[in-house]
Amino acid sequence: MEIREKPIGIFDSGIGGLTVAKEIMNLMPHENIVYFGDTARVPYGSKSKELITRFAREAASFLMKQDVKMIVIACNTVSATCLEELREMLPVPVVGVIEPGARAAVKATKNGMIGVIGTERTVKSGAYEKAIRMLSGTVKIFSKACPLFVPLVEEGWLDNNVAYFAAKVYLEPLKEEGIDTLVLGCTHYPLLKPMLKRIMGDGVVLVDSARETAAEVAQILSERSLKRTGTGPSCYRFFVSDNPEKFIEVGERFLQRSIDLISVVNPELR
Amino acid sequence: MEIREKPIGIFDSGIGGLTVAKEIMNLMPHENIVYFGDTARVPYGSKSKELITRFAREAASFLMKQDVKMIVIACNTVSATCLEELREMLPVPVVGVIEPGARAAVKATKNGMIGVIGTERTVKSGAYEKAIRMLSGTVKIFSKACPLFVPLVEEGWLDNNVAYFAAKVYLEPLKEEGIDTLVLGCTHYPLLKPMLKRIMGDGVVLVDSARETAAEVAQILSERSLKRTGTGPSCYRFFVSDNPEKFIEVGERFLQRSIDLISVVNPELR
Repeated sequence: MEIREKPIGIFDSGIGGLTVAKEIMNLMPHENIVYFGDTARVPYGSKSKELITRFAREAASFLMKQDVKMIVIACNTVSATCLEELREMLPVPVVGVIEPGARAAVKATKNGMIGVIGTERTVKSGAYEKAIRMLSGTVKIFSKACPLFVPLVEEGWLDNNVAYFAAKVYLEPLKEEGIDTLVLGCTHYPLLKPMLKRIMGDGVVLVDSARETAAEVAQILSERSLKRTGTGPSCYRFFVSDNPEKFIEVGERFLQRSIDLISVVNPELR
Repeated sequence: MEIREKPIGIFDSGIGGLTVAKEIMNLMPHENIVYFGDTARVPYGSKSKELITRFAREAASFLMKQDVKMIVIACNTVSATCLEELREMLPVPVVGVIEPGARAAVKATKNGMIGVIGTERTVKSGAYEKAIRMLSGTVKIFSKACPLFVPLVEEGWLDNNVAYFAAKVYLEPLKEEGIDTLVLGCTHYPLLKPMLKRIMGDGVVLVDSARETAAEVAQILSERSLKRTGTGPSCYRFFVSDNPEKFIEVGERFLQRSIDLISVVNPELR
């Protein structure tokens, strides 16, 4: 098969990366996609660097066996933990979600005060700080881990009392600092946008890495002449390591389209 | 080594089983303990039956290599999913947390209306219903999955607004049914007891499986002449599959004592 006809591989610890998949589908409707969600070992956010790196290597090897032309790490935790290791290991372009998010944040801020929210691991890694610092020496960055947000989204509690008070606890300190830009540094968080918007107010721009990452994918495909030229209908295949029923149920809400081709795989064994 | 001098093995998907370990330490201060928490793959509660059974077999094999005289499955999800498989597989007595909890609930109820809360998997399994039915044909059982409770406990939010409103959403329907007994069917939940008590009111008994399970362990050791006779200081060893720092930090809060001997292991490789 000609390389440009091959699918884009997308990897996430579970279901959250579908927000990135959705933006890629919208922006590049002719591309084929293979998505792998490591639902047997989700969540990654509270795990160690060593373990996340091992999981990510296994997932990347699995996607390479699916003959992908590019790999998108649609998971902030993995992007923050071992993007460079994956780039060194893989023979195809690798795109993470941190750099696109950082670029968008620096572009958006007017007062130079940027907030970053994410999982424990993402925040601890300091990856957004580093990526933002590379682009601007003058902005101030305020980070906050929000460990309850992923379970809230998975429960489908996007705007009830529980979600609201949790968001208040996490976001009030950032609001008090006077940030004008907030990076949603986890692929689950875009589903909480309306509520986060209400808490932060109109003066604060919410940066959603999913959209920025899709734009970066389009640019790389174009620069490297990797855009699919076939005009037949695109094909979306999904692989998970456990519980396909729940992936379909929650995933269709994320994707706003139906999930038809799904299989269960064990990435450890490949 | 004489068999009665060997340690008790305790297994949990992560940190929650320490509530059971603590009760065993209090009730049987001379026993040695080996605890394994599968922190690399926690949480189990939303995973499939097949995957949980595989993880549990790996953990049990690991504990057998530590030369234990008995295995306590200090995890409701595992007890609800594959206790029988483990009993068939293992050459030592195996105690789960469901049967002791069910017995205590049947003993406690006066109006025959029992509520059960737990993870998605535990509730879906119907294990408490089955265990309670074995003891009483007349009680009515009302179950409710509370997926937010584990992350709340891990975040240390035991009695703030967020925990309170989450508990309200989950428990109001049970309260309206008129239950007089509520089984805390997850080893994390005892830490939420004061708040759950406030919501349910004085008329409702909260059944904490940890205490009941420790009593059952004591009884089995005694019946089978497996009680340790040595009077030297008891030794507590902890194994986790990831992130020992977090285990120590949160675990000492659960255990109300310090965690000194801890190692990281990969149960897949054993």
